[in-house]
Amino acid sequence: MDYTSYIEANKNRFISELFDLLRIPSVSADPAFHGDVLRAADFLSQKLREAGADKVEICPTAGYPIVYGEKIIDSSLPTVLMYGHYDVQPADPYELWHSPPFEPVIKDDKIYARGACDDKGQLYMHIKAFEMMMQQNQLPCNVKFMIEGEEEVGSNNLNTFVQQNKERLQADVIIISDTGIIANDIPSITSGLRGLSYVEVEVTGPNRDLHSGLYGGAVANPINILCKMIASLHDENNHITIPGFYDNVQELTAEERAEMAQAPFNVEEYKAALNLGDIHGEEGYSTMERNSIRPTLDVNGIWGGYTGEGAKTVIASKASAKISMRLVPNQTSEEITEKFHKHFTSIAPKSVKVIVKPHHGGEPVVTPTDSVAYQAASKAFEQTFGKKPVPVRSGGSIPIVAMFKSELGLDTVLMGFGLDSDAIHSPNEHYGVFNFLKGIETIPYFYKYYAEMSKG
Amino acid sequence: MDYTSYIEANKNRFISELFDLLRIPSVSADPAFHGDVLRAADFLSQKLREAGADKVEICPTAGYPIVYGEKIIDSSLPTVLMYGHYDVQPADPYELWHSPPFEPVIKDDKIYARGACDDKGQLYMHIKAFEMMMQQNQLPCNVKFMIEGEEEVGSNNLNTFVQQNKERLQADVIIISDTGIIANDIPSITSGLRGLSYVEVEVTGPNRDLHSGLYGGAVANPINILCKMIASLHDENNHITIPGFYDNVQELTAEERAEMAQAPFNVEEYKAALNLGDIHGEEGYSTMERNSIRPTLDVNGIWGGYTGEGAKTVIASKASAKISMRLVPNQTSEEITEKFHKHFTSIAPKSVKVIVKPHHGGEPVVTPTDSVAYQAASKAFEQTFGKKPVPVRSGGSIPIVAMFKSELGLDTVLMGFGLDSDAIHSPNEHYGVFNFLKGIETIPYFYKYYAEMSKG
Repeated sequence: MDYTSYIEANKNRFISELFDLLRIPSVSADPAFHGDVLRAADFLSQKLREAGADKVEICPTAGYPIVYGEKIIDSSLPTVLMYGHYDVQPADPYELWHSPPFEPVIKDDKIYARGACDDKGQLYMHIKAFEMMMQQNQLPCNVKFMIEGEEEVGSNNLNTFVQQNKERLQADVIIISDTGIIANDIPSITSGLRGLSYVEVEVTGPNRDLHSGLYGGAVANPINILCKMIASLHDENNHITIPGFYDNVQELTAEERAEMAQAPFNVEEYKAALNLGDIHGEEGYSTMERNSIRPTLDVNGIWGGYTGEGAKTVIASKASAKISMRLVPNQTSEEITEKFHKHFTSIAPKSVKVIVKPHHGGEPVVTPTDSVAYQAASKAFEQTFGKKPVPVRSGGSIPIVAMFKSELGLDTVLMGFGLDSDAIHSPNEHYGVFNFLKGIETIPYFYKYYAEMSKG
Repeated sequence: MDYTSYIEANKNRFISELFDLLRIPSVSADPAFHGDVLRAADFLSQKLREAGADKVEICPTAGYPIVYGEKIIDSSLPTVLMYGHYDVQPADPYELWHSPPFEPVIKDDKIYARGACDDKGQLYMHIKAFEMMMQQNQLPCNVKFMIEGEEEVGSNNLNTFVQQNKERLQADVIIISDTGIIANDIPSITSGLRGLSYVEVEVTGPNRDLHSGLYGGAVANPINILCKMIASLHDENNHITIPGFYDNVQELTAEERAEMAQAPFNVEEYKAALNLGDIHGEEGYSTMERNSIRPTLDVNGIWGGYTGEGAKTVIASKASAKISMRLVPNQTSEEITEKFHKHFTSIAPKSVKVIVKPHHGGEPVVTPTDSVAYQAASKAFEQTFGKKPVPVRSGGSIPIVAMFKSELGLDTVLMGFGLDSDAIHSPNEHYGVFNFLKGIETIPYFYKYYAEMSKG
């Protein structure tokens, strides 16, 4: 078969179709973009049909719809279920983008736009790879597509959809491209993901904003108190102080840590890329370990009091923060959210009131590297990159991977083509044209090898 | 003389004129209100003329103008210089106002509007008291008015104006109504004020916002770091930890503290009024001491990361805070700002960059209770309230009082008629109709007694 020439002949169309998708500001976290999120679902259902999918449907949920499509060529052949998400992160702060987030451009062979990599660029590779296999009559197995619009806000309705559609979603394996490779010349496959516990906290002091001159020093300032409470969540070694937080953490063996340490990493380059005066993190662990095999606690947002121009001498009534914790096997988001809630309220002084509101959570996962699916993915990478990919534990979270396992009994292969430097969730998110096209080339080999190896 | 009947006959006009002034949103901190601030200056210059002032002028400065007016009846008589400010604090958060901040209304005999008390309501008492004395040919001494438009943003140009107008501003005493009384049946005169040091800090971690999954735990999160730095500024006894912060603090004698303790204060009422679970503050000092004779450090505003709807898993590049310190005799704002700057940058870990930007400052003052001016004010209160007023050290700051002393060699008498419960700088600021009219009645007696007592 010849994929490279097909890609060469069609790459401009592939990219311009992706641009059309990227121009739709499908920000699921912000109600202001409601109509745009729905437009993205329409767009994908059309493209699935054009690529040759059957039974394409925009399935309603309590939130944003899930786009479904399938191609069943022979029920005796294995079935691959592809998952992706068409919603994107908010693009703010807009002023830090070099080009508007929803007006995609190519610079230095990179596609710049919100969602270019996460996940529009990566999910669209699958639709074009499918088109290519169909056009060349080389689809080696059955395929199903499930593309949701609420991944960036916690996939709140996916679970229900999966439970109500177990028949329709029957498959042998799930493939997701929402992760990355170490470098374009160092292919890798994600073999583990961190879980997530996300909470919003609100500290209330006086029942109204007060003049800091008349009341300063005599009432609890909710901002100062919130800062003290947040500061106390890490000790001097940057260990998290929440009682029982580490109880269930799966510690790696010396061998596993040694193997991890083989992955190429240059701390000076890392510092330079982010303009960091120094690295920072939990005592006793390397940077690569800190962002993959260790649980963390980060404030994602904080606000309170006067933040406008000039100086206002006010003591705010309330202060708030969004706090997320990344989890590792075998922590659970419910357990950690509960422990956070209990601890955070317990450390509040009597002079303030505290509310802890849980947002979405997700469970950590480790994917088996000895499975047929992983081996097939490994061979596919070797075929197109000319190198055996290394298994990597990622620091990110794809909560639904654990859910697919529990609800559908299916393992997932995380075959992503992004780079850590793609700035997903940040201003100037981008995705390499090389990565986009290489993904389209590699995916069909996964189907091929998976079909072959499943037989034997 | 008969002031009460004149006030009774004109009070509706007095109030409707004040309403006209309150309808002008003269917010000096926000450039969006630039034109409105200037309109307030025009309005006051007209009213001064109508009241009978001569040489009324809107004096330009590098910022907002200063309204000047005077009435010299006999150069051998003493001269009182009245100071006030026509600018107001920002009104946000607007949603917490029961009625629009710039549409004054009377509810339960209180005037609700931004600036109703601070300082439009209080400065306008002086213009109406002046009108009354003029109408009844009872002006007992010379009077000068100086009303500025930048008090809420640090009076940055007042100092220059004063230096350039020493001749024109020659007087024997300064009177300011920008403070309060303990209660409507417990008159008091402010005998001391705290100073102010105000800074804005910015902590920068990575050079861009990052995905908290891929980087969480491996880079310094500027919000967590800022919280740790702010938390460290107070120890477990709520003493401020900045080296040398208390070096020059004037400690009160046991006698002075005992006298202060005489002022009526009910901690349960205080907690109930603010819906506080508990009081809070520096170990070893009472609530009344904490907000008057002790220096403080409060965060007035904090912001960083994602503060919109929903959950965004981001590690922000920057986090910022506005921090103010209230100063007591004999601290100086320059000294404290310098010590804060030195300390705050010194406690920053190498993994972040810190900027400390000083805003305006002001010096603490103590006004002598044995001066002729204080005694005259005391007699005036006794006359109209039927009670001798108690001297009170206020926690607020009127930085220009110290400046008037150093530049013009003049003492100030702080003859305010507000209440702590007036919610100045807060939503639903208000000013009692009783207080407004009582001020208009009391001020002429101050002039009378001051003129008489100055002779002897």
